[in-house]
Amino acid sequence: MDLGMFNTQTDLALDARDMAHAANQGQPIPGIEQEFTRENGIRVTKINVLNEEGSKALGKLLGHYITIEVPALREKDSQLQDRVATKLAQEFEQFLRQVGIPKNAKALIIGLGNGNVTPDALGPLVVENVMVTRHYFELVPEDVSPGYRAVSAVAPGVLGTTGIESSDIVQGIVDKSKPDFIIAIDALASRSLDRVNTTIQIADTGIHPGSGIGNKRKGLTKEQLGIPVIAIGVPTVVYASTIVNNAFDLMQKHFSGQTSNTGQIFGLLDNINEDERLQLVKEVLNPVGHDLLVTPKEIDQFIEDIANIIASGLNAALHDAVDVDNVAAYTH
Amino acid sequence: MDLGMFNTQTDLALDARDMAHAANQGQPIPGIEQEFTRENGIRVTKINVLNEEGSKALGKLLGHYITIEVPALREKDSQLQDRVATKLAQEFEQFLRQVGIPKNAKALIIGLGNGNVTPDALGPLVVENVMVTRHYFELVPEDVSPGYRAVSAVAPGVLGTTGIESSDIVQGIVDKSKPDFIIAIDALASRSLDRVNTTIQIADTGIHPGSGIGNKRKGLTKEQLGIPVIAIGVPTVVYASTIVNNAFDLMQKHFSGQTSNTGQIFGLLDNINEDERLQLVKEVLNPVGHDLLVTPKEIDQFIEDIANIIASGLNAALHDAVDVDNVAAYTH
Amino acid sequence: MDLGMFNTQTDLALDARDMAHAANQGQPIPGIEQEFTRENGIRVTKINVLNEEGSKALGKLLGHYITIEVPALREKDSQLQDRVATKLAQEFEQFLRQVGIPKNAKALIIGLGNGNVTPDALGPLVVENVMVTRHYFELVPEDVSPGYRAVSAVAPGVLGTTGIESSDIVQGIVDKSKPDFIIAIDALASRSLDRVNTTIQIADTGIHPGSGIGNKRKGLTKEQLGIPVIAIGVPTVVYASTIVNNAFDLMQKHFSGQTSNTGQIFGLLDNINEDERLQLVKEVLNPVGHDLLVTPKEIDQFIEDIANIIASGLNAALHDAVDVDNVAAYTH
Amino acid sequence: MDLGMFNTQTDLALDARDMAHAANQGQPIPGIEQEFTRENGIRVTKINVLNEEGSKALGKLLGHYITIEVPALREKDSQLQDRVATKLAQEFEQFLRQVGIPKNAKALIIGLGNGNVTPDALGPLVVENVMVTRHYFELVPEDVSPGYRAVSAVAPGVLGTTGIESSDIVQGIVDKSKPDFIIAIDALASRSLDRVNTTIQIADTGIHPGSGIGNKRKGLTKEQLGIPVIAIGVPTVVYASTIVNNAFDLMQKHFSGQTSNTGQIFGLLDNINEDERLQLVKEVLNPVGHDLLVTPKEIDQFIEDIANIIASGLNAALHDAVDVDNVAAYTH
Repeated sequence: MDLGMFNTQTDLALDARDMAHAANQGQPIPGIEQEFTRENGIRVTKINVLNEEGSKALGKLLGHYITIEVPALREKDSQLQDRVATKLAQEFEQFLRQVGIPKNAKALIIGLGNGNVTPDALGPLVVENVMVTRHYFELVPEDVSPGYRAVSAVAPGVLGTTGIESSDIVQGIVDKSKPDFIIAIDALASRSLDRVNTTIQIADTGIHPGSGIGNKRKGLTKEQLGIPVIAIGVPTVVYASTIVNNAFDLMQKHFSGQTSNTGQIFGLLDNINEDERLQLVKEVLNPVGHDLLVTPKEIDQFIEDIANIIASGLNAALHDAVDVDNVAAYTH
Repeated sequence: MDLGMFNTQTDLALDARDMAHAANQGQPIPGIEQEFTRENGIRVTKINVLNEEGSKALGKLLGHYITIEVPALREKDSQLQDRVATKLAQEFEQFLRQVGIPKNAKALIIGLGNGNVTPDALGPLVVENVMVTRHYFELVPEDVSPGYRAVSAVAPGVLGTTGIESSDIVQGIVDKSKPDFIIAIDALASRSLDRVNTTIQIADTGIHPGSGIGNKRKGLTKEQLGIPVIAIGVPTVVYASTIVNNAFDLMQKHFSGQTSNTGQIFGLLDNINEDERLQLVKEVLNPVGHDLLVTPKEIDQFIEDIANIIASGLNAALHDAVDVDNVAAYTH
Repeated sequence: MDLGMFNTQTDLALDARDMAHAANQGQPIPGIEQEFTRENGIRVTKINVLNEEGSKALGKLLGHYITIEVPALREKDSQLQDRVATKLAQEFEQFLRQVGIPKNAKALIIGLGNGNVTPDALGPLVVENVMVTRHYFELVPEDVSPGYRAVSAVAPGVLGTTGIESSDIVQGIVDKSKPDFIIAIDALASRSLDRVNTTIQIADTGIHPGSGIGNKRKGLTKEQLGIPVIAIGVPTVVYASTIVNNAFDLMQKHFSGQTSNTGQIFGLLDNINEDERLQLVKEVLNPVGHDLLVTPKEIDQFIEDIANIIASGLNAALHDAVDVDNVAAYTH
Repeated sequence: MDLGMFNTQTDLALDARDMAHAANQGQPIPGIEQEFTRENGIRVTKINVLNEEGSKALGKLLGHYITIEVPALREKDSQLQDRVATKLAQEFEQFLRQVGIPKNAKALIIGLGNGNVTPDALGPLVVENVMVTRHYFELVPEDVSPGYRAVSAVAPGVLGTTGIESSDIVQGIVDKSKPDFIIAIDALASRSLDRVNTTIQIADTGIHPGSGIGNKRKGLTKEQLGIPVIAIGVPTVVYASTIVNNAFDLMQKHFSGQTSNTGQIFGLLDNINEDERLQLVKEVLNPVGHDLLVTPKEIDQFIEDIANIIASGLNAALHDAVDVDNVAAYTH
């Protein structure tokens, strides 16, 4: 999350699917494939956007999306965290096969975001904890055991602290170090407070700049960099206006059909279109300093936990020699 | 802020005054004295609760309250920060005189909260940055220059990480080190998102445990500890439900008198009592993980800045030899 | 290690034994019992100082000493670290039995040292990572599972940052929270660079103030606090003069008997008494800023690793319900 | 300092000059210009290596060297720190003129080293604290006030944590962001414990890889990158063997001419050649873990202080609009 560079509010494919579904009155959406599993408190949803029709319906780019949802992830349960890391490893390994990344393809892991702003430090923290091996392949190739691939990892910083677009730094590093594909880790702004620090999305669409101020900016995409870019995103912040807008939704549902006085009032909110309503909320909150990006109080612990999960999951997914059942041992 | 120990949502005297005022239809409230100044973007409000009548009207304890509001404090302006530190020093020095603390009274600064949870780390950070002198008075009294008083400073940790009530730890330290008064720094849960990291409250009422779960718990008060306890609090977190409830208020005001469809809907909210409405919001948000305590994304920087302001302000206020105009030089 | 408060150079019982042994020309020392095991790169030496004669011979107080030496501990081997934690747990559990601490005795863990000075942060880091349970026993005793004891943990800070003697803070906390015994963790100044971050010493002698400047100061001892005090110490720093003096020793041994020119020169050093020589080294190094306390470059990682080992070991040793084979899961 | 990449023991030009001088029996060295000033506890030595003869005599590359020595820098005196920052700003500004860098030349500041290893974190810390402006020149050139130049800043990490040579990362960034010159900040291994954290060296020679293991590696030099590279280095660590060897020197000097027994012994050390002696020390210390790189115990504070001094000094030197007398205000 590099506010100003990338889109600060990214709809997860999952949320987009739900919205499209609702709009489609629950009918299947053409051009969209999906698959859903739930096990041990971990929900995995896979959505493939197959063609332009699906892309338009969802408002998401053509590509493959995996969302891992773990509502209990904020509860500091280290055994659950291990299970999530293992699940992530399995899904990511399979995802690489699905999108055609071979076993020996050289990976460059890019940790986007500002390491000194806790909710934005996910990318830099993953980079710190991930196992890098590229230098062994370069310097002592004969000593590298089988079952490993070349992995490098860089946190390029953010425009405000480097003065250089992250995408330019990444491109420079790609040009010199010649990886075969990129895994870009980024913190996202969430559509909903309950997604914050509980959801991981994987996509092969790369990372696209926001459409706002940064409209002349470059993203991290295959078009831009010449190699596939897999994005791993975790919502870590949410706008106050989003929280308020979500609350309206929840209250409408809660009171839906109730004939009490309160029920009737919230029922009337149905008459306001959702986008219009969010606009309204922003208009009211912004001038008085009420529309900040916020993050849960326990963010220090959450970010560290999720960064460990992602680093462990990536280590196991990228190297056959690292056992999926014991991923945690390979990170700090 | 030791969630579970102390009241997690503290009404600032200022907010209580506003509510009482509103309830009193703008008439002066008997038993309450107040004074207000505004200069250079810094608003200072002094409220004295003189008697039981005033206490009841405000819902605040008898005592003296100063609130320093600096809406621009979140904008990373180091000159403004210096001005706030100077203002705090002047006000705190005068406050000590007003509440009868003599110039040579020995101070113990207590930094409440959990140093590993950023929005709760205010107290421990102030303790880290404040100038301590008590050991010189104890070990080499003849070498202490005039213009200093004995100051000690301890961060007692929180129940969840020490296993001991902070109030017990403080009492033990008071018994052994014999200070003449206590200054207790604590992070608070706010009534409003725009107060977060922009407001400092000083009060001579001590720190009182919450009325909820912790009802058997002891606070940090003169009754408990036998010496005056001055509390310095800064709101650093806010409940999601509070954000939503504030938004209702703002929208009601915004649409008040409007005859549009939307205006009429929000007008109807007037019919719901405020407490009832907050209860409603909590009921709806809580079960789906939407009622977290949240903090602005930039909390790392904010907490560091405010801790420096308070440490600098205290240094200048507590020691005549430390110049109010150059407080910053005495902290890290 | 609170420089100025406690003795900054603590002879480990092990080193004292070696010196006494040497002085005694390899004969058993009366009043001293010892036992030695070595397994998997971990050496454990137990020394009991049984009477005044032994105490005088060793220059150590009456009591029980365990030293765990792991020369490879600096090599960042996480499996070795787990083995050391397990060994520490076993030894500590047995030590508690040996010195008569019952299974349900309430422990207060004291993390001495300054958390902001990395090589001095061992104690505070252990406190941060250890499992505290006392508050459950106090607040919800009926909910505590069998197999746990009441454990509390506090880092009292250092005189220079609190203005209060650590021993006074600890005494105050003991008076209020009534533990049955204390475990005090402290970083030590080492007799030898190769001990730094590779050696853990456990002793039931408490912690004694240095004999230098701090001669009026109180320690953490049973005499002082009225309850047993078990000290866990790890050498984390060493004086430059100690490094130089050790080098002389090593060179003397290296060249011992050699008839080369160099050998003869170093042989002559035998003629200088060891204490006299160290004094000489200090005299020469001090005035030119060459006698600093130093620590290995990788101290950040070392301190974190050893703090985790000690926290894990204590968790398993103190609670029957925590499995010695899986101690790591109970710490962060 | 990227151990393995760059020369881990860099002779400061100053030390090289002293050695050459000694070898030349105090006579001026041909091909070397020098200038020395001392003021208020700050010594500044400028050495220009004019030609091959001078280069050979000193064992240093052709170029300009400034060494700023502040023996009291370790004493936590914030006023002295401000004076050093101001001095550094003045000297660096003049140095840029001397080596032909124009006022509007675009600077890229490279912070070498590993931010997670405190004594190696100097470069990353300077990058964090320096004022970056390049993005304003790129995005809103019309809004940039006069008196500023375009400055960008990147910490490229170290080979062990990124898997990519720092020099490759830097080259990639140079290719994409087109700066006019580079300022590379690096922590060095010192020739002497008293230099550690007290000395700053500026040179226009770039940064050269060590001659040892890393002999195939690329440095950061004008030859390599096509633009001038100014290096700023601060010794932050020292080998234990260096400490021992320095002690031999000091003792030889101390006892020189003394006819005492001890004096005679140390006098004999004269007979051993210095390089041979260091080799000897290493041979003896290494096998027993006695030849670590060490750093003073207070390194956390030292590194932070020097990073602030360098960041403040660079801000004032690089931008005319930043006042040399008030450099500190522009850094955190």
